[in-house]
Amino acid sequence: MTTITVPDGSPFGLDNLPYGVFSTPAGGRRVGVRVGESVVDLAQTLGYDVFARPSLNPFMAQGRARWDEVRGRVAELVAGDVPASAVHALPSVTLHRPFEVADYVDFYASEHHASNVGRILRPDAEPLLPNWKHLPVGYHGRSSTVVVSGTEITRPCGQRRSDDGPVFGPSTRLDIEAELGFVVGTGSPMGSRVSTDEFAEHVFGAVLVNDWSARDIQAWEYQPLGPNLGKSFATSVSAWVVPLQALEAARVPGPVQDPEVLPYLKETQDWGLDIDLEIRWNGHVVSRPGYRQMYWSPAQMLAHMTVNGAAASTGDLYASGTVSGPGPDERGALIEVTWGGRHPVDVGGRPSTFLEDGDEVVIGATAPGASGGRIGFGEVAGRIAPAVEPGP
Amino acid sequence: MTTITVPDGSPFGLDNLPYGVFSTPAGGRRVGVRVGESVVDLAQTLGYDVFARPSLNPFMAQGRARWDEVRGRVAELVAGDVPASAVHALPSVTLHRPFEVADYVDFYASEHHASNVGRILRPDAEPLLPNWKHLPVGYHGRSSTVVVSGTEITRPCGQRRSDDGPVFGPSTRLDIEAELGFVVGTGSPMGSRVSTDEFAEHVFGAVLVNDWSARDIQAWEYQPLGPNLGKSFATSVSAWVVPLQALEAARVPGPVQDPEVLPYLKETQDWGLDIDLEIRWNGHVVSRPGYRQMYWSPAQMLAHMTVNGAAASTGDLYASGTVSGPGPDERGALIEVTWGGRHPVDVGGRPSTFLEDGDEVVIGATAPGASGGRIGFGEVAGRIAPAVEPGP
Repeated sequence: MTTITVPDGSPFGLDNLPYGVFSTPAGGRRVGVRVGESVVDLAQTLGYDVFARPSLNPFMAQGRARWDEVRGRVAELVAGDVPASAVHALPSVTLHRPFEVADYVDFYASEHHASNVGRILRPDAEPLLPNWKHLPVGYHGRSSTVVVSGTEITRPCGQRRSDDGPVFGPSTRLDIEAELGFVVGTGSPMGSRVSTDEFAEHVFGAVLVNDWSARDIQAWEYQPLGPNLGKSFATSVSAWVVPLQALEAARVPGPVQDPEVLPYLKETQDWGLDIDLEIRWNGHVVSRPGYRQMYWSPAQMLAHMTVNGAAASTGDLYASGTVSGPGPDERGALIEVTWGGRHPVDVGGRPSTFLEDGDEVVIGATAPGASGGRIGFGEVAGRIAPAVEPGP
Repeated sequence: MTTITVPDGSPFGLDNLPYGVFSTPAGGRRVGVRVGESVVDLAQTLGYDVFARPSLNPFMAQGRARWDEVRGRVAELVAGDVPASAVHALPSVTLHRPFEVADYVDFYASEHHASNVGRILRPDAEPLLPNWKHLPVGYHGRSSTVVVSGTEITRPCGQRRSDDGPVFGPSTRLDIEAELGFVVGTGSPMGSRVSTDEFAEHVFGAVLVNDWSARDIQAWEYQPLGPNLGKSFATSVSAWVVPLQALEAARVPGPVQDPEVLPYLKETQDWGLDIDLEIRWNGHVVSRPGYRQMYWSPAQMLAHMTVNGAAASTGDLYASGTVSGPGPDERGALIEVTWGGRHPVDVGGRPSTFLEDGDEVVIGATAPGASGGRIGFGEVAGRIAPAVEPGP
């Protein structure tokens, strides 16, 4: 037996306890919990069948009461003596995408992001479209290309505008979007709705998301049906799902919503989240967006997504859209950081606008924990590999 | 043992042999083939494990060589004596959604549809946007609400514009879109591409699709990220997947594409399809669109969808978008048939624009078969149930 040491100030102390899926040279994929710089094998220690699976979906499908109960047992487990064979040093394991993605929806919930993009792309018009403050605008993305942090991102090829008509080739405006993603544990059947008050009954936890975006492909394709190939090549998520319970101390009121929202979007609980993100580009911090200023809450997003009777499913992922705050150092996408590519930023002596081959982006985040310190999301990281062009 | 009788002129003769998933009071979901007015249990007769499953996905994952081989065996089987216990009269079985839907993408591939919609919604502008003839425009839809023909469709609620700002309530402009859907059997990994020539290696077969659309919800929400709740409440598919082999006699050249498309969209094989659709609204035929005039072929759609390195997966469904021909009696959506609701059509003595509660829409289709007759897709049918409004 062994005792797990949690370094002072670790964002992975006992008030976090995020779940992930890992494997070791000796054993296949199963569910673990991160504590300090260790991963504890929950399949081996707790013996629940749902943890001996290659994704969190079976556990997530069990629902809020069970999630709460198991979280209590996990906390007891890792605070005591644990079989040494169940404790793995983080560098010795491989982390996998922690859940199977059912439907993936990406929102556009930051007023600052939507306004910045509006000003950059349509400088002579109102930055926000008329619907923006009445509903959380969102669209469906591609579930099969949601990958775990660390997966290499191949620069996509596609069509983009040129003076001589569209041309095909590697994207020249490859960007990121730093987002928070919410993972649905228990779904709702087709024909029913999830009210804003029912958010915590359905949502299991949160991850960091990097919604890689090829701005040149997107700009040419997106009218009138929205983004497709400019986004569908890859979306990265962090390896650890932070349970909603761990975010209790991060809950804050969201911004005042004016005009008043329709009744189905009203909330009686605060689901604004005081989470600080940090974006590092080749090791240089280029932005520190705060999630607390997001206009639409995740409870409103889920209520909106299901108000037409659309089903929600175990494994649904819905992301906030780019997290941007009001300040110039709080922008969550490079198109904003560089103001449409017009103001390069210094990335280690290299003036940069969009991503170059070999560049690495790492997005991290922390939030207040229950015991006064901070809890962490880990990171969502990705390095750009050169495009593979089609054969002759 | 019994011999299966195929009525003269049946669209389900030996040159069709579509696959579906059925159950009986005595037995759970498994794979069957439709012959005439019978369903033959393939799990019982052929004994392949992949047919004793509740979806076609395991069989579809086996690939083109196996699909071709099995089709030969199915043809031999149903032409000879079959155990009587494996033959079920169609009305005695329940049909289920034949495959698990991985990613769902809906295209917009009919020039006539896109032009009609452009003229209706933007009468003073060019009906086609500048990108339309350069790439097959499409977007991702919601996989979890793809349902089998016959599933009741509850009228969705949502936000729509009014003179006093947005209001919430049941959609007042509920519409259909008659489409053809293509089902991916074997996928392609992230980072690779499927060329137009590889279409038949990956696509297993085709279904009819009704992309139910709430035009009022869609019109208010869709800028700038495309349709979401106006479509995500339900998409219906026919119960029978017509194998690609059965469509050999339907293959025709598509329309001339001018301007010339980029190299990755060029084709050396014809994948235009001479399929006739028919839309019945409460029993009255309101349109007969022909698929042969679709501007973009399904091979081009798949090549486009993966050219950025996006993965394709077993069970991916991609649909053509509304099938409309050039004539006024060849329009595949009610917004076109009634020209934006301005010209009601007579549906059994009732002048009608959009769908009322209790209305039923049935879309059928046939194509030339290998032996000179016609093969059928069966139908995709749905009846509208009244909206369920949220509680107080």
